Amino acid sequence: MLSVLRVQAVRGPAVQAFCQASRTSRGSLHTARPAFNTTKEISPLGKLAQGINAIRSTVLTSSLKQALKSPQKPVPFTGEAATWNQAIREAQSLVETETERMIDPAQLVGRDLWELKGNIGKLLGSGHPFLDTVAKHYFSGEGKYVRPLLVLLVAQATSIAPKQPEWVHSQDYQSIDTPISHNLENITSKDTFDRGIHYTPSMTNQGCSILPTQRRLAEISEMIHTASLLHDDVIDASETRRNLPSANASFGNKMAVLGGDFLLARASIALARLRNAECTELMATCIANLVEGEFMQLKNTQDGKTAGEKGKRNTFDYYMEKTYMKTGSLIAQSCKASAVLGGSTHEVSDIVYNFGRHLGLAFQLIDDMLDFTVSAADLGKPAGADLKLGLATAPVLFAWEEFPALEPLIKRKFSEEGDEEQARLYVYQSDGLKKTLGLAEKHCQLAIDSLNQLPPSDARSALIQLTQKLLTRRS
Amino acid sequence: MLSVLRVQAVRGPAVQAFCQASRTSRGSLHTARPAFNTTKEISPLGKLAQGINAIRSTVLTSSLKQALKSPQKPVPFTGEAATWNQAIREAQSLVETETERMIDPAQLVGRDLWELKGNIGKLLGSGHPFLDTVAKHYFSGEGKYVRPLLVLLVAQATSIAPKQPEWVHSQDYQSIDTPISHNLENITSKDTFDRGIHYTPSMTNQGCSILPTQRRLAEISEMIHTASLLHDDVIDASETRRNLPSANASFGNKMAVLGGDFLLARASIALARLRNAECTELMATCIANLVEGEFMQLKNTQDGKTAGEKGKRNTFDYYMEKTYMKTGSLIAQSCKASAVLGGSTHEVSDIVYNFGRHLGLAFQLIDDMLDFTVSAADLGKPAGADLKLGLATAPVLFAWEEFPALEPLIKRKFSEEGDEEQARLYVYQSDGLKKTLGLAEKHCQLAIDSLNQLPPSDARSALIQLTQKLLTRRS
Repeated sequence: MLSVLRVQAVRGPAVQAFCQASRTSRGSLHTARPAFNTTKEISPLGKLAQGINAIRSTVLTSSLKQALKSPQKPVPFTGEAATWNQAIREAQSLVETETERMIDPAQLVGRDLWELKGNIGKLLGSGHPFLDTVAKHYFSGEGKYVRPLLVLLVAQATSIAPKQPEWVHSQDYQSIDTPISHNLENITSKDTFDRGIHYTPSMTNQGCSILPTQRRLAEISEMIHTASLLHDDVIDASETRRNLPSANASFGNKMAVLGGDFLLARASIALARLRNAECTELMATCIANLVEGEFMQLKNTQDGKTAGEKGKRNTFDYYMEKTYMKTGSLIAQSCKASAVLGGSTHEVSDIVYNFGRHLGLAFQLIDDMLDFTVSAADLGKPAGADLKLGLATAPVLFAWEEFPALEPLIKRKFSEEGDEEQARLYVYQSDGLKKTLGLAEKHCQLAIDSLNQLPPSDARSALIQLTQKLLTRRS
Repeated sequence: MLSVLRVQAVRGPAVQAFCQASRTSRGSLHTARPAFNTTKEISPLGKLAQGINAIRSTVLTSSLKQALKSPQKPVPFTGEAATWNQAIREAQSLVETETERMIDPAQLVGRDLWELKGNIGKLLGSGHPFLDTVAKHYFSGEGKYVRPLLVLLVAQATSIAPKQPEWVHSQDYQSIDTPISHNLENITSKDTFDRGIHYTPSMTNQGCSILPTQRRLAEISEMIHTASLLHDDVIDASETRRNLPSANASFGNKMAVLGGDFLLARASIALARLRNAECTELMATCIANLVEGEFMQLKNTQDGKTAGEKGKRNTFDYYMEKTYMKTGSLIAQSCKASAVLGGSTHEVSDIVYNFGRHLGLAFQLIDDMLDFTVSAADLGKPAGADLKLGLATAPVLFAWEEFPALEPLIKRKFSEEGDEEQARLYVYQSDGLKKTLGLAEKHCQLAIDSLNQLPPSDARSALIQLTQKLLTRRS
C-alpha cells in the first residue's frame, strides 16, 4: 500500500504543477506520464530503460517529475509561510475547488504506469538478445501509453460502480504471474513476487481501486498495440513511423514479423493467466479487429473502387468501420475488459466500452486532421502520410462532397504526379477540416456522455478531461 | 451420436482397406485422412474445398474413401458368401486378431477430421474476400492434419485414463461457439448450432470419447500451425513450400503477415471460448515457442558462431532445442491440452505431453534426414532446402563428428560455391544419416513408452502405430 499512499500524498503542489505543465505543453494527452525508475536493472529488456529518461524529462516539467519521484508532503494553509513559493503553494490549496480543479492522471495512476514498462520487460524476457533488440526498438521510443492509462483510469472509475451480484473477488494475486499448467516454465522473472506492493489492490481516498489483473491488462494492451505497429510496418512498408526508423527498415521484415508475433504470444500467455475467459475473448477480438482493419485499409488502398463502390455501405461508413477496427476496437475492448476484470455489471462494462469506442474514433479523426494541419516536425511523422499511402481519410472525404473533381484522384489513390498537392488544395478550400473536427467533437461528447453515467470520482474526471483535451492536441 | 455409430459400423473391410492402403502408400502418417464432404457450401471459405477432392483422392484408396463416405455394414463370417470378394472379406474378419490388427485412425476419428475443415472455415469467416484468399492458399493445399489427428486420438486414449477428482464435466456444448461477452459479435455462422451431432461427445465401443472442446482444440492446433507456416514464409523468404508457390511469393509479405495474424487471432478467440485457462495458456505457449524456434533458427543462420559457440549448450543441444521449439512444442502442448480439456490427472497429461514431445522431435529428425535422401518430387519440397538456408541439421552435425573439415562450411553456412555439394558428400560418406535415423528411433521408442502408460484402447494402438510408421515415412 505504501506506494499508493505516497502517490496520494502528492496533493496541491503536484496538481498545480501538472496544471501548469499541461497548459504550457502541446501534447496534452501524452504528457501525463511519470518518469520511469531506470536505475535498477531488472531484465535484459530493462536495460533499454536507461536511455529513456532523457527524452521523458523533456515531456514532464521537472517539478512534476520531482513530485512523482519523491512525493512531497501536502501543503496545508498555515498563514506562516517562510518563503514566497511556500506562500503561493499554500494559497493555491485554498482556492482549489473540487469541481474545477484539473485532475492529474499521473497522480492517480502514476505509480502503476511507472511500473508498467519494467513489467512488460519481464513479460517479454526471452533469453534471446535478437528478440530483445526488436522489442527495444519500439519500447524505447516516445511511448504514449494512452491505452494503459485508459485501462487504469477505467479500473478506478468502475471500481465504485455496480458489480455483478455473483462476482466475488477471490483472485490470488500471485497467480497472474505463475503458470497455470504444471511443469510449464515460468516466463516472468522471480523477483516479481518479491515486490508485493504491485500485487495488492491500490485504493484511493474515494475508495477507487485497481486490481493486479487490471494492471496486467494495461500492460497487455500496450503489448498488443506495439505488435500491431510492428506488423503494420511490414504491411505498409513504411520507412519511418513517428520519426523513428521503422523496425521494418532497421531490422528487416523478419524481425518485425517475429517481434510482433512474440509480443502477441506473450500477451496471450499473460491473458490466459488472468483466468478470465471473457477478458481473453475481448482482447483476442481486438487482435482480430486490428487485422481486419488493416485488411480494409489495404483494400481501400488497392482496389480503387472506394469512390463508386456499390452496396449499402457508402465510402464514409467504410472509412469509419475501418477506423473502429484499427483504432477504436483496442481502446474500447480494453476499457470493457478492465471493467469485466473488476466484476462490473454488463451495463457498466457497456458504458466504458462506448466511452472507449467514441474516444478511439475521435482520436483517429483528429489524427487524420493533423495529417493536413501540422508540420512533420510537430507531428512526429511525415505530414501527408495518408495521401502518400493512397488513403482518403475524413478531410478528403468531406472535401469530396464539395468538390466532385476529387473523385478521380481518390479513385486512383493519388497515384499521379501532382495528385497529392491537388487533393491537399481541395481540402484547404473546403470545409473538410472543420467538418472532421466537428465529427471528432461529436464523438468526444458521446464519450463524455457515457462517462457521466458512472459515479463521480477523480478517475472519471480525469477521463473526461483527457477526452476534452483530445480536441486540442497538436501531435 | 448417429455419425459415431456409423463410423463404428465400418468394421473389417475398412480396416483391411486401410491396411492395404497404408502398405502400398508411401506417406503412412499422412494418408490416414478421410475425403472431405465438399458438396455442401457452408461459408465463403468453404468454397475452396471444391477443388480439393481431386488431390485428396490420389492419397486415399478409393475403397477406403468409399467406406468413409458411406460406411458399409460389418461383414460377419457366414460361410455362404456369394462372391469371391465377399468370401475373402468374411475370411479376413476371422483371422483379424485384436492384438495384431492395424488400427485405422481414420476409422476412429474420421468423421471428426472430416468436419474439421468446414469448421475452420467457419472460425475464419471474415467477410473479407482478401482474407479468404490468403487462408484458402494454405488450407487448399495437401494438408496433412497431423496435429488435429493426434489431438483427437489423444482425446480418445485419455478419456478412459484417470481423471482429476475435482473435474466435473459440465461443459455447455453450445458455449464453444457462442461469445462469452455480451454484445460481442459471433464469429461463427449460425448453422453450426443446427448440427447437434458435432456438439455431443462421441463414444467408441471401448468407452473412449471425444469432447466438443477437444474437437475445437484439434481445429485450433491446425490454425496455429498454418499461421506459423505463413509467417515463416516471410521470415525465410522461401519461394516455394511443399511445391506450392509460397504465400509470400504469391501474395506478398503483406498478405502472409495479415493472414497469419488473422489465423492467430481467430484461434485465440476460439481458445477463449473453451473457457479453460490452462488450455489457453498451453496453446499460447506453443505460439511463443514457435517464434522462439524461428528466432533460434535465424540466429543459427545469421551469426555463424554455431560451430565454435562457447557456453554450456553445445551445437547439438541448440539444434535439438530449436527443433523442440519449432516442431515439438505445438505437438506436445496440443496433446497435453487435449488431456487437460478431458479432465485428465497431471500424470496423464504429462504422459501425453512426453509422447508428443518425443514424436515431434522424431518427426523433425526424419524430416531432416529426408532432406538428404529423397528427391524433390517425392519430398514435395526442394531437396537440400536446409543447406540452402544455411542450416546445419542432424545429418550434417553427426557427419561433422567424423569429418572436422565440415566445420568451416558450417561456420560460413554453406555460403561459398560448392559448399552445399561438399557438405552433402561428407554426409553420405559418414554415418550421419544412420545416426539421425537412430536418434529418431530412440525418440519414437520413448514416445511409445509414454503411450504404454495409458490404458489399452484402439486409440492408443493407433497412436503407437502412427509413431512406428513415422520411421519409414518417405515424404
